Order: sequence, then C-alpha cells, then structure tokens
Amino acid sequence: MMTAGLALHTDKYQINMMYAHWINGSHNTKAVFEAYFRKLPFGNGYAVFAGLERIVNYIQSLSFSDDDIAYLAKQEEQYKPEFLEELRRFRFKGSIHAMKEGALVFPNEPLIRVEGTIFETQLVETAILNFMNFQTLIATKASRIRQVAGDDTLLEFGTRRAQEADAAVWGARAAYIAGFHATSNMLAGEKFGIPTKGTHAHSWVQTFRSEQEAFDIFAQVMPDQVTLLVDTFDTLKSGIPNAINTAKKLEAQGKRMNAIRLDSGDLAYLSIQARKMLDDAGLDYVRIVASNDLDEGTILDLKAQGAKIDTWGVGTQLITAADQPALGGVYKLVEREVDGKMVPTIKISANPEKVSTPGKKEVYRIISNGSGKAIADYICFPHEEMPPENGKLKLFNPLHPYMRKNVKNFEAVPMLTPIFIQGELVYELPQLEEIRAYHDTQLDQFWPEYLRKLNPEIYRVNLSEEVWEVKQRMMAELMEHSED
Amino acid sequence: MMTAGLALHTDKYQINMMYAHWINGSHNTKAVFEAYFRKLPFGNGYAVFAGLERIVNYIQSLSFSDDDIAYLAKQEEQYKPEFLEELRRFRFKGSIHAMKEGALVFPNEPLIRVEGTIFETQLVETAILNFMNFQTLIATKASRIRQVAGDDTLLEFGTRRAQEADAAVWGARAAYIAGFHATSNMLAGEKFGIPTKGTHAHSWVQTFRSEQEAFDIFAQVMPDQVTLLVDTFDTLKSGIPNAINTAKKLEAQGKRMNAIRLDSGDLAYLSIQARKMLDDAGLDYVRIVASNDLDEGTILDLKAQGAKIDTWGVGTQLITAADQPALGGVYKLVEREVDGKMVPTIKISANPEKVSTPGKKEVYRIISNGSGKAIADYICFPHEEMPPENGKLKLFNPLHPYMRKNVKNFEAVPMLTPIFIQGELVYELPQLEEIRAYHDTQLDQFWPEYLRKLNPEIYRVNLSEEVWEVKQRMMAELMEHSED
Repeated sequence: MMTAGLALHTDKYQINMMYAHWINGSHNTKAVFEAYFRKLPFGNGYAVFAGLERIVNYIQSLSFSDDDIAYLAKQEEQYKPEFLEELRRFRFKGSIHAMKEGALVFPNEPLIRVEGTIFETQLVETAILNFMNFQTLIATKASRIRQVAGDDTLLEFGTRRAQEADAAVWGARAAYIAGFHATSNMLAGEKFGIPTKGTHAHSWVQTFRSEQEAFDIFAQVMPDQVTLLVDTFDTLKSGIPNAINTAKKLEAQGKRMNAIRLDSGDLAYLSIQARKMLDDAGLDYVRIVASNDLDEGTILDLKAQGAKIDTWGVGTQLITAADQPALGGVYKLVEREVDGKMVPTIKISANPEKVSTPGKKEVYRIISNGSGKAIADYICFPHEEMPPENGKLKLFNPLHPYMRKNVKNFEAVPMLTPIFIQGELVYELPQLEEIRAYHDTQLDQFWPEYLRKLNPEIYRVNLSEEVWEVKQRMMAELMEHSED
Repeated sequence: MMTAGLALHTDKYQINMMYAHWINGSHNTKAVFEAYFRKLPFGNGYAVFAGLERIVNYIQSLSFSDDDIAYLAKQEEQYKPEFLEELRRFRFKGSIHAMKEGALVFPNEPLIRVEGTIFETQLVETAILNFMNFQTLIATKASRIRQVAGDDTLLEFGTRRAQEADAAVWGARAAYIAGFHATSNMLAGEKFGIPTKGTHAHSWVQTFRSEQEAFDIFAQVMPDQVTLLVDTFDTLKSGIPNAINTAKKLEAQGKRMNAIRLDSGDLAYLSIQARKMLDDAGLDYVRIVASNDLDEGTILDLKAQGAKIDTWGVGTQLITAADQPALGGVYKLVEREVDGKMVPTIKISANPEKVSTPGKKEVYRIISNGSGKAIADYICFPHEEMPPENGKLKLFNPLHPYMRKNVKNFEAVPMLTPIFIQGELVYELPQLEEIRAYHDTQLDQFWPEYLRKLNPEIYRVNLSEEVWEVKQRMMAELMEHSED
C-alpha cells in the first residue's frame, strides 16, 4: 500500500546508468520510452490495463530520503557526493501519457509513454513496469473469469495465497476494475472503497460444541448477511441440514438467511443437491456460494454440468494469475536527443518479435461509425494527421500483405491520455466506479469473437506506413553497419 | 515494505467471526492454531521456511488506527460501537512459536503455532499465511536454483516482473536467505543489507552514437565493477568485439573489466563462443553473466551443454515462482478451551489428506548421532517426553505399517522456537547473514537424496503414537456422530 518511500524500488542498473550519464554530462539528454507487452497472457484476446493510479502516486511522491542517500553513499560504486546531491534534489519533471485503467489493450502498442531527461526516465522504469505488469495481469485474469461467470456474483478471496501484501491489495483493486463485485481484503476495502464480503471459517464451527450451535449463534449475530459454511464435517449429512434448521429459526423471526457456502468436494453434485434440499425446505431464496481453487476453466465446467451456484469465491488462481503469473511488459527507448533534435532509436534482436518500433508514437482505436465496434488499433507518429484528411485509413499487416483493408466512416479515438506534463499531474484520477464503467464500455466496443476465452480472434494492431518505413530503414541501416 | 498499518490486511470473515464471538461473549476463549502446508511445491523434497521477520514486525505493530475504526463503523454488518472500542484497544497478547527462517520444513508439520484468545488468533490468520506462503515459496524456489548452480554466483533480477512491490522486496530477501548472492532491487538492499548488483540496459547503448562509445564511457565511470551488456545489436559480431576493445583500453590503464552479460539468444552457444573470444584476447579474467528467463531447469540444461557462464541473473521464474506461484499453507484450529480446559479439535474433510491433526503439537528433528544427518521429523504433544526415557524412538507410518523403524542414539532437536510469549517478543531476530548460515547448516543435515531437484526421496514426518491415536479416536467419534 505504501507508495511513498519507493525511490529505491528500482534496479541498481538504473542508478548506475544515471550515474554514468551524470559523470558523462549526458544526464539531461531528452529521451522517450514506451512500455508495452509483446504477448497476451492466458491465450486471451485482450488485456485490461491497470496500475495507473499506483504509478501516479509513485511519481508524485518520488524523492530520495536522507536514509536513501546515506545508503547510496555506501555502495561499492563510490558515487560522487555531487551526484548524491543531484539525487537529493530529484523530482520527476517529465511527461507521461498512458492508457486509462480498464482499457482493453493489445500487444506491441505503447501503454505508457514516458518523456523527460534520460536521468528521470531511466529511474522510473522498474517501478512502472512492476506496477503495470502485475495489475494488468490480474485485471486481465479477472476479466476472463467475468466472461464465463455471466451475471453471477464474483468475490475475490485470494489474500492468504497472494504474493505478499501489495499483491493482495492492488490485486483486489485490479479484479474489481475488471468486474469482480467484492473482495475479502479489508485493507483494499478501506483504501479503495471496494465492497467487502466475508462468511466464516471452519474454525468458527470448531469452536462450538456442535455445528448447529455454531450456525445458530452466527446467524443471530448478523441475520441479514449470514452465509454459513457447510463443509466442516459432512456437507450433505450435517452442514446443509443444520443450515436449513438455522434458516427456519431465522424465518420464525421474520428474517432471511443469505446463503450457504460450499468449499470442498464435487461442487457440481453438491450444489445441485444443496439447491434441492434448500428448495424442498422452502428456502429458494437462500443462495449458494462456492469456493475452492476456482478459475475461469472450472467455473465454465461447473456451469456446463448444471451446478447451482450463484456466487463464486475466487482465490489463488486469480490473485496469482496462476497459469501465467507474470506479464512480460518491457520499457524501451524509442527516441533520444542528438544535437538538440529528437531522433528515433531501435533495439535489434535475434528474435524478430523483440525488435522495438522506433519513434514516439500515438495509439488510436479505430471505431466503425456503423457498428460502433472497434476495427483496429492504429499506431502512428504524433505528426501524422488523424483521421487523415480524405477520411480514409489504410490498414495493412506488413508481414501478411494480403491482410490489407481500407477503412472509412470511422472514429479514431486517441488512447494515450496525458497524465503528467513536465512534472505536473494533469489527469484527474477517476473514481473506481468510473473505471469499472469505462471497462464495461470498452468491452461493448468489441465483437464477442475477440472476447471469448478460448482461441479468440486476433485483434488488428497496425503500424502506420510511415512508422513501418522508419522501422525498416533503421533495421536495414543497422544490418548494413554490422556487415562492415 | 510497510508493516505498520496492516491491521485491516485481513479477510472480512475474521472481523465477522471476532464480532460474533464478542457478541456471544466467547471472544476470550483460548485457542491454538497451527499453520502448515500439505504439499511441497515444485516437486521439491523440502521447503525453506521464510517470512518470520515480516510476521514479527506485523505482530508488533498490529493496532487499528482511527481511520480503520471509522471504516469499520460504516460496514453493512453494523458492528456495535463497543466492539469497535474493543478493536481500538486491541494489541496482540498471545504466544507464537515458529520455525526459524532458513529451516528446511516439510508437509503437515506445524511451522507456526499461535496461541491466545480466539479473538486475536483469528485476526492474524490472513496476514501470517500471506507472508509465510509467499516468502517460503520463493525461498524454496531459490534453494532449488542454488542446488543446480553449484558455486556459481546467483543474482536476483526479478523486480519488474514481481507481483507488486512487496513481492519484489521480500522476495529478494527470501532468495538471499536460500543462497542467492545479490539482488538488483535497491530497496531490498537498503532495508535488509542484501548486496546489490547491476549492469546496464540496452537503453544505455541506444543513447550513444555507437556501442563502442557507450561501452567505453560506461567502463570509465565504474572501471572496477563494469559489466557490459553485449546483445543490443549483435552479440558475436558487435557486442563482444566492442567489449574486448573496451577491456583492452582498461588494461592499458592498469584496470580489469569485470564481466560481459548475455541476455538473449542461445546462451550455451554464445557463452562458449564468448569465452573463446575473451580468452583468445587474453581476457580470461573477464567473467560471463547470463540472464533471460532462467530457472533451475534451464540452468541445469545449459551446464549440461557446457555453457561457460559464471553468474546467473534470475528474474521472473524465481520472483513469481512461475511453475507454482502459490504455496497452499493453511491455518487450522487444533485446540480450544472448553470449561476452562484446553481440548483438541479436528476438521474432517472428504479428502483424507485434508483432515487436520488435533491438539497443540511440537516438532522435533531426529538427528543421528552417528552420521549427523536427519532421520525424520517427529510430531508429538508437548507433554510427551522427548527424547524418551529409554532413549529409543519408534517411528511409524500408520498408512504403511511396514515402514516402521526404531531409532536410538539420536538427538531430538526442537524445531519450534518461542517468538512471542503473551504478547512479548522473546526472540532476537537474527541478522540476515546468520539466517543464510543457518540455512546452510540445515542443508548439511540432509543426505543428498532429499535435496535433489527431480524425484527426491520423501523425508519421513511421523506423528507420535499418542497423536495418531487421538486423531483416530476423534475421527471415529465424529463418524459415529454423523451416522446417527
């Protein structure tokens, strides 16, 4: 949760490069970096951008404390005292553009663009990637789960298995952005205003002489919210019959039990039996909550088997993104200052998909005026007119030239929003409910084939011809050079 | 990093159970919980316990702020003001015993034992599991990597892919406990005194007119620590030849370059070529660092292929424990107060391996006086004499009765150490170097077959006959009851 005190939450090589630039006198050279990922996680058709609020807080409070400076003074690199003074005075004075949280985003398009001196743009790389990578990953996982859960209620229950406290709290927020309805983590509730939900543990039942006594007491304490966990001893023989007794006692007081929770065993079979037992007892209003290592795969399967589950408590698989626990977001230099002018720069790689795209770029989402649906994301240089004067846009996939398409009658929505301009925050952080609503409108802009869990259609992300040509030219120049 | 302000880093059901106990007047009932895991991660033969320092800090600073209380007052449960006052006064006054950080630990043995009122023992469950599960997971992963890396240097480079900031920082510490030599994360360096290492990024090279210029400048700034990243353009044709030129210029000044770093491509082939090129240039002292999605599997393979790599930079796979990103540690009630006396309690499950073992327990490591090696872990009640008066111990596996063994001439080392006694910290947190050294002595106590990466021997963890009998009796009683 702490966002102050993170100046040293960076890789040592950033500090070393800052020092080397400072010694070399090049630390005020201007640079443009872009953060993006190359591959969608989970085989999904899109990712859900998250992490911006954390990044904004980080940038705003970014400064080196006396302790930080004292620590740096002891390093084996023996940084000069004047450099440490430079750090002591440091504030981020650059500019940041970013996707909005909740946006659907795609591979190889800039999600965050950072402009400033090489000194400041280098320092912030590590933390920006750390926040963006994790929160975007969890929001994407949550969105997948949302796609299969339909109108069911989704609860985030993962704190005990999360990768430490920040992951639990910021992960709960990312899940809420992408459509979860509540979290069990009270700190996330306090900090972000996310609704919180909780039932009781097996230990509650174990601390009483009988399950019936445990249920009755719990129900009396919070008659309006009570959800009883029914699998401490035997779900069908003991838990559900006792829960039904408790519900009947509540009815006699004019109150209604909320739900029972299944936490082990065959959730399809048990939920169907539970539904029948509850209905037979006239308790059709009592809902069924299920938990136990759920994810989008098990939820889909359980639904296909006719499970009678109204609410899904999702823990480990969501909060750790267990099937792919890291998003490989990178932060690449795309422009640098040479003799007072900004020029594009490129990073070559033996892996063609790892070659960076040179130049500072904008991202437009091309929305059909007819259908209101997204056709493609279009990446161009800031000076390129958008939409083009003639109202037509040529989309082309340079690797597969037959996949070209001319588009007209569209809206070109700029996706990168100004967040900081020369160190000043120019963006009003939206309320969490606004972000959730924005995510929903984003989903509405895409045809279902892009959103499905398995083998989604690949959404088109195209470079402008000019960007493509600059990239080709720079690659050719470098190749020529290396053949000398 | 923040450890204060975590009172609400708990699941809502803990607060609800605390409230229900308070309403019911049972909140001061005594309880004993034990935290353990059921299954080793990664198919490893052991886990490495970590997280205790974080837990100690958490317990010491555990209190509800005014903001926390104000937040709780707004919940739909409508907690009574007197309950909130009880929380406002709350301090942890219970007792905690735990394994020491760096200990080798095994499934189904208590790693942390928490005793106190049901009120306080319930509150701390979530955070204790969150810290123990993550840090133990990462220490275990790091220890696996250490097993295959031999005497090579291991660097933790995962921050940008870690699951948020706490995971990066505490994960770096866990990796160091289990034998990593340094981290790139400067905050982990500052907070814990872990050595930090860093080279430079591709962007350093990209900000200069040529790779050679970039290398030369960087080398002049930190001639004693310089490690040059050689894959920005072309490792063999450009990076290594330029690095050799730089090294030769340093030699002319009487200085020695530290290393080159390979970060892409076929690390086996490239490192062998690089070694040859460096040696041919008389630079046999220049070391080779490799990075790029490494883990214990790829390191073992690269070594088998004769890769000439001295130092391994390990990122994503370690810091997220990518092949199994959660340890399923649980926290189960084992004893509760009934009419002023403590009695064992059990949780039954349809899955036999999920039935809890009743009663407050001790863990002894049985060390052969002859070999100095561990024979088994032995779990018994505190009142059981250990070692037994006759000096003999019967080890038995109740599921496989032929696997019994009588042991004599052994030392029984108590593994659970008092940490808090009635709210007072009675344990002096060791320095990180002590923890590392303790981990090494722990490894020395085990035969290699328990430590190997693939298909390790299963280490024996046995219950005392008395514990076993109590468990059987309680299961039988519950079964009888549920057949009524």
